[in-house]
Amino acid sequence: MDILIHEVGLRDGLQMESEPVPTITKMQWAETLADSGLDIIQLGSFVNPKVLPQMADTDELFEEVKKSGKFKAKFSALILNEKGFERAIKADVDLICMGVSASETHSKKNTGMTVEEALNRIIKIATDAMSIGKDVQVSVQSAFGCGYEGDIPEERVYGIVEQYFNNGINKISLADTAGYAYPTKVERMFTYLQKLNPKAEFACHFHNTYGLGMVNTYVAMQNGVKYIETAFGGLGGCPFTKQPAGNVCTEDFVYMLQKMNLRTDIVISKIISVAKYASGFFVKDLPGYLHKIWREQ
Amino acid sequence: MDILIHEVGLRDGLQMESEPVPTITKMQWAETLADSGLDIIQLGSFVNPKVLPQMADTDELFEEVKKSGKFKAKFSALILNEKGFERAIKADVDLICMGVSASETHSKKNTGMTVEEALNRIIKIATDAMSIGKDVQVSVQSAFGCGYEGDIPEERVYGIVEQYFNNGINKISLADTAGYAYPTKVERMFTYLQKLNPKAEFACHFHNTYGLGMVNTYVAMQNGVKYIETAFGGLGGCPFTKQPAGNVCTEDFVYMLQKMNLRTDIVISKIISVAKYASGFFVKDLPGYLHKIWREQ
Repeated sequence: MDILIHEVGLRDGLQMESEPVPTITKMQWAETLADSGLDIIQLGSFVNPKVLPQMADTDELFEEVKKSGKFKAKFSALILNEKGFERAIKADVDLICMGVSASETHSKKNTGMTVEEALNRIIKIATDAMSIGKDVQVSVQSAFGCGYEGDIPEERVYGIVEQYFNNGINKISLADTAGYAYPTKVERMFTYLQKLNPKAEFACHFHNTYGLGMVNTYVAMQNGVKYIETAFGGLGGCPFTKQPAGNVCTEDFVYMLQKMNLRTDIVISKIISVAKYASGFFVKDLPGYLHKIWREQ
Repeated sequence: MDILIHEVGLRDGLQMESEPVPTITKMQWAETLADSGLDIIQLGSFVNPKVLPQMADTDELFEEVKKSGKFKAKFSALILNEKGFERAIKADVDLICMGVSASETHSKKNTGMTVEEALNRIIKIATDAMSIGKDVQVSVQSAFGCGYEGDIPEERVYGIVEQYFNNGINKISLADTAGYAYPTKVERMFTYLQKLNPKAEFACHFHNTYGLGMVNTYVAMQNGVKYIETAFGGLGGCPFTKQPAGNVCTEDFVYMLQKMNLRTDIVISKIISVAKYASGFFVKDLPGYLHKIWREQ
């Protein structure tokens, strides 16, 4: 089983924190996370700095990591629109992430667009990016339900993903923005989509609103999902959802993998050091478990 | 799939709390938990009140529930030795729980006995109880590893369970006292034991030391385990282990089951009301997720 970890704490983790993290500290965290052996590190998002000032230094972070050139890890960023795309190209982002919400209400609150408007725009940007050789991952947010709308019909999610497929975009993430996913649904949806396009590569992104993030991630992984999105310390949550809750915790997830004899190449203590540092930085308990009890062996 | 829930919060949850809960409050919690439709409510343990004063009123709690006679739920208690057994018989406990640790160190700290001494004694008590028609569940504690000793060979656990089987005791719980379990181990161990004795009934009991309680419980359930031990609010932890951590949270687990269309008969809001009450009583956050965000629909 080939499991790759996409660490999203510097983006999905920090966007929820009101206290801005200095660029130099973010850079330390990014370096340590990359050194740990995690596969993809999301450095931030190219969004309006007035809306999310915590992400304003994303360009600068890319400049730093690209300048050093010493990392094996790839670096990703989230974009919402054409302007973000231009910045991502300039920053030489390794994996450009973008997506739409399956929920009209969440789409409106998050982007000001309907789902269809957002989808047409994202597909255009994604295909443009691919046409110049960029690696792209597209997502469906609120894919398992919405904090505002409740259940989201699975057919609506499948319809969005089919449009991605029809446009040649085969790296697909289903994001559980509201934390509504549960094991049988996770299994059903990924199984359906894999049958639809056996060549596609899938990613999952679960939040812990109801305490099911880890079990959902495990079920996704058992059902062929290759890219697992997690955040150090279990930080995170979308500021534009109703009940934001942390991501699946990277080091807890890696701990589970390693107990199962997977990804023993990752140096877990490095991820833990970032979680501990972040807990101290924000002067609060983080949701993850491992960093609270870890002692070096 | 026939999943039964054994609510252990009043025992495994409260034994870790230094603040004693008044008998009348425990009784309110027990009644609400029983009314919610949970299958078995563990009221306490018959142990030395000097060692665990929080459990001193277990006899009185049984007197109350037996007097009322109005509950569909069964009531269980934990015993450690002959003296506890006598009290359990007198209290007319519906399901008498007892067990041994697979770890010599944990056994010594918890009972003052070696594993073999403890096992001989427990088997004698269990068979005595069964000979007078009592329902008995025996456990192996530290079955997935030990906070002091680390890994516990699976063969050692299988050897203990075989001795239970050889003595006609077929209701077996594997308890992850130290929180060391992980999905592939859970699957492997329960599969092995089921092949050894297809007529046996299995229970699981996971702690959240490393954040894996829910995923382990899910995997156990997928592998034929029928009795799931959980605690309201996610309270709990063995006072005689190295890194005590909460149990799998009852209401979070029931929420997952109900999303999967299982056990929709359970009234989850009643369990949540007990978790909220307990959080207020102890004036602290409990580990569970659902009770923190629940609003009546």
